[in-house]
Amino acid sequence: MTLTGTMLIGQHSFCGNRDAIRAINPATDMPLEPAYAGGNAEHVAQACALAWAAFDGYRETSLEQRATFLETIAAQIEALGDALIDRAVAETGLPRPRIQGERGRTCGQLRSFARTVRAGEWLDVRVDTAQPQRAPLPRPDLRQRHIALGPVAVFGASNFPLAFSVAGGDTASALAAGCPVIVKAHSAHPGTSELVGQALTRAVRACGLPDGVFSLLYGSGREVGIALVTDARIKAVGFTGSRSGGLALTQAAQARPEPIAVYAEMSSINPVYLFPAALEARCEALAQGFVASLTQGAGQFCTNPGLVIALKGAALDGFIGVASDLLSRCPAQTMLTPGIFSAYETGVRALTQHARVVARGLAAQGPNQGQAHLFVTQADAFLANEQLQAEIFGAAALVVECADDQQVRAVCEHLEGQLTATLHLDEADLPSARALLPVLERKAGRLLVNGWPTGVEVCDAMVHGGPFPATSDARSTSVGTAAIQRFLRPVCYQDFPDALLPDALQQGNPLSLRRLLDGQREA
Amino acid sequence: MTLTGTMLIGQHSFCGNRDAIRAINPATDMPLEPAYAGGNAEHVAQACALAWAAFDGYRETSLEQRATFLETIAAQIEALGDALIDRAVAETGLPRPRIQGERGRTCGQLRSFARTVRAGEWLDVRVDTAQPQRAPLPRPDLRQRHIALGPVAVFGASNFPLAFSVAGGDTASALAAGCPVIVKAHSAHPGTSELVGQALTRAVRACGLPDGVFSLLYGSGREVGIALVTDARIKAVGFTGSRSGGLALTQAAQARPEPIAVYAEMSSINPVYLFPAALEARCEALAQGFVASLTQGAGQFCTNPGLVIALKGAALDGFIGVASDLLSRCPAQTMLTPGIFSAYETGVRALTQHARVVARGLAAQGPNQGQAHLFVTQADAFLANEQLQAEIFGAAALVVECADDQQVRAVCEHLEGQLTATLHLDEADLPSARALLPVLERKAGRLLVNGWPTGVEVCDAMVHGGPFPATSDARSTSVGTAAIQRFLRPVCYQDFPDALLPDALQQGNPLSLRRLLDGQREA
Repeated sequence: MTLTGTMLIGQHSFCGNRDAIRAINPATDMPLEPAYAGGNAEHVAQACALAWAAFDGYRETSLEQRATFLETIAAQIEALGDALIDRAVAETGLPRPRIQGERGRTCGQLRSFARTVRAGEWLDVRVDTAQPQRAPLPRPDLRQRHIALGPVAVFGASNFPLAFSVAGGDTASALAAGCPVIVKAHSAHPGTSELVGQALTRAVRACGLPDGVFSLLYGSGREVGIALVTDARIKAVGFTGSRSGGLALTQAAQARPEPIAVYAEMSSINPVYLFPAALEARCEALAQGFVASLTQGAGQFCTNPGLVIALKGAALDGFIGVASDLLSRCPAQTMLTPGIFSAYETGVRALTQHARVVARGLAAQGPNQGQAHLFVTQADAFLANEQLQAEIFGAAALVVECADDQQVRAVCEHLEGQLTATLHLDEADLPSARALLPVLERKAGRLLVNGWPTGVEVCDAMVHGGPFPATSDARSTSVGTAAIQRFLRPVCYQDFPDALLPDALQQGNPLSLRRLLDGQREA
Repeated sequence: MTLTGTMLIGQHSFCGNRDAIRAINPATDMPLEPAYAGGNAEHVAQACALAWAAFDGYRETSLEQRATFLETIAAQIEALGDALIDRAVAETGLPRPRIQGERGRTCGQLRSFARTVRAGEWLDVRVDTAQPQRAPLPRPDLRQRHIALGPVAVFGASNFPLAFSVAGGDTASALAAGCPVIVKAHSAHPGTSELVGQALTRAVRACGLPDGVFSLLYGSGREVGIALVTDARIKAVGFTGSRSGGLALTQAAQARPEPIAVYAEMSSINPVYLFPAALEARCEALAQGFVASLTQGAGQFCTNPGLVIALKGAALDGFIGVASDLLSRCPAQTMLTPGIFSAYETGVRALTQHARVVARGLAAQGPNQGQAHLFVTQADAFLANEQLQAEIFGAAALVVECADDQQVRAVCEHLEGQLTATLHLDEADLPSARALLPVLERKAGRLLVNGWPTGVEVCDAMVHGGPFPATSDARSTSVGTAAIQRFLRPVCYQDFPDALLPDALQQGNPLSLRRLLDGQREA
């Protein structure tokens, strides 16, 4: 469990030969050892060759083998013990309990995909049996299953060093689907990445899987990242990060001779609608909930509530007053990296040009500490200025005051695609909420009533996705078991002899799947 | 049922003001009345505004309403009677029984989607109930369903004037999903398009649906087509046609401020592998089946078998001999349009530069008649020259002679993505077939044993799709009931009161769906 500063290409370690980075402890601004030298196009090609060689074998491992592998990864991560927690805390400035919780979430997620793999519904087996007597033409025997797309490139996020990183949701779902994975580690937490990468390669070895099932690279987005996305052997990409980063990868993927799918989770300001009766009844409680959600983890969540929409008036004034009061007593919090802190400062400064600051959190006491901000603007101004809906990654939010229901609707229609939209409502608000719902369904992947968008449950029903620019592909979720579907494609087998069919499609249904058999779902 | 030469924007007719086209009867080279004046960007904007206005209402019609609508479209198409058949025959040069069969397929497809809509599995309902007592954090109530993406632009194919056109598979599946549809009619069969468009608008009226659920436009791809794909209110595109056409639409869709999904079915040469034992046992029968599949419908099928791969030797010589003999007695056949005929001639001429012609069909007896062609080349040459795998739309095929199994595999790995791959094999070929299968699974959406790829069954298990350039999105099929999934996205509802939930997600399960409830599939 010592850190070596090397990349993992299959079971082998390689030292890069490009500029080295060291993680920075954002709480102290001090660099952390060891140095991680960046890889180059050669390393990418090597990892891709290995992943390609592993693909056909890995995608046909049994459901049990693959599920066991995912569980073994979880166990290996847990076996890293405090070393992992210590390093992740040092690299991110996040509180220890948060990192411990995130480890639990990450391992729980791997085990959840193990259950999904075993259940086999993702194979979506459909069988239409032959009708040799059918006139005018006989019907052949047709059987469909889903297979893995191919090796997947994963780009981890800065804000979840475990759950959206080396062995996070993208990796877990791609491995579950039968895709080898090559991760480009996020430069903010290379040590955490190496530890988890080591755990993953140990799991590959323990399960007797081909080397190329997993590799971990370091290096620049421009060199290693683009080389990875444009390698012909990579068939899909998972990414969580900025809009500009996601778009760069998407464009590179589309410019390939064979374009590939990119699942980029990018930008969302997560509107919160405060309906009149709810606002009237409990503006103080709403303000408390809002400030807690806004400032949690220094506001560094994709689902951070960055926009509040409500009718102008005394109740909203009350909400703003209480929220301002609470927020002005919030201590500044260490952000993940100096770069993220500086982008936050820039974003806040830019918004100050266009909206009124009504509250600022307490001043910073150390390096890279973000001060929470609350802004207010009018609906007219919001509708007239695109910059007011630019995401500021951190604890800054904007309240949009609307003159009437029509303006609420106009603001809502004006929004770009979102990960979430939240409705705070009471019984008396139901008719207005019902009227607004169709617009919100078009705008966001997850709709919440009387809750707060931060906190994304890993379960079957979760949608962590949404229309562009929330993600590059609104048809998918990157959290929850449905995430496996991103890395699959259907294949149909016509008139195959049983001996040549994969298990899932054989006559005797050896995997005991509930198939769609001649139009009927099996019990 | 008179043809008016006008576009249908909702329930209203509009005459275009751009260059008019008339369909050409390819069998006589004579133009057919009436003239169809092309629309412009204004017409596109009007149709999109109407579709957008219809969207929220249409997507929430009940499953029963939507299924009835699809069935009504089928009945209205059948009610067109011989007028539709006559016009389609005149516009395409296809034989009358083929058009009659295609009408049956088109109406059967609409009814098949009606059954799929009613069954409701496409909603993919997932419910994770609240766990208020869970520690450290309670779990909220989370419910997922799928909703329609938005208005869809459909571009019909030249070669299926009914089944892949105005009310074809793309339209049927998009309407089934709850998406309004705007069709840009193919210029090869505007009259057929108008008749079917009229049937569709009658069905919209009969079912009391909003006007904008369906519109039909004429005009140039460059003006009307691009305006349609780049209109912000269009959220997905269905296309069947050439590689260049599909790529142009895909690029336009990706360059939008909000990129959208394009399902383009483009180019495939549908390799056929003749394994040694099968070839030895029945080279004559194989040659007969091959020539029949190759020349059916003048070879104008996306699944036309354009490539035959086998080991060099006496058996393959026998196959080539019999096929050449049969093919040289095939009459030339009228192709769909003068443009398609001329592209076929150009393609054949180009291939003649690179491969040996071993047989030509009988000479043309009338205008636009394509003469079948069989070419032979060696694996080395095939591997060295990308041009040898360019699709020739029509009855031309290339036999690739391989020295050994390794060369068969190399040819196979060298292929671009395909709609189909066919294996002709006997018991003794099973080990070789098993070894090749993983490669074929990576290359094609449908694999066939001892059959021919032409003939695409409309059923649950069908995959009419495949890796690029067969389609722009290998994760989908454009034929069969799974095609509905292309036009859907998941939405999650968190802690919603029952009164605000859509039917599909309500506590009492009023639609009697088999939900994924707390990780278990309901019986």
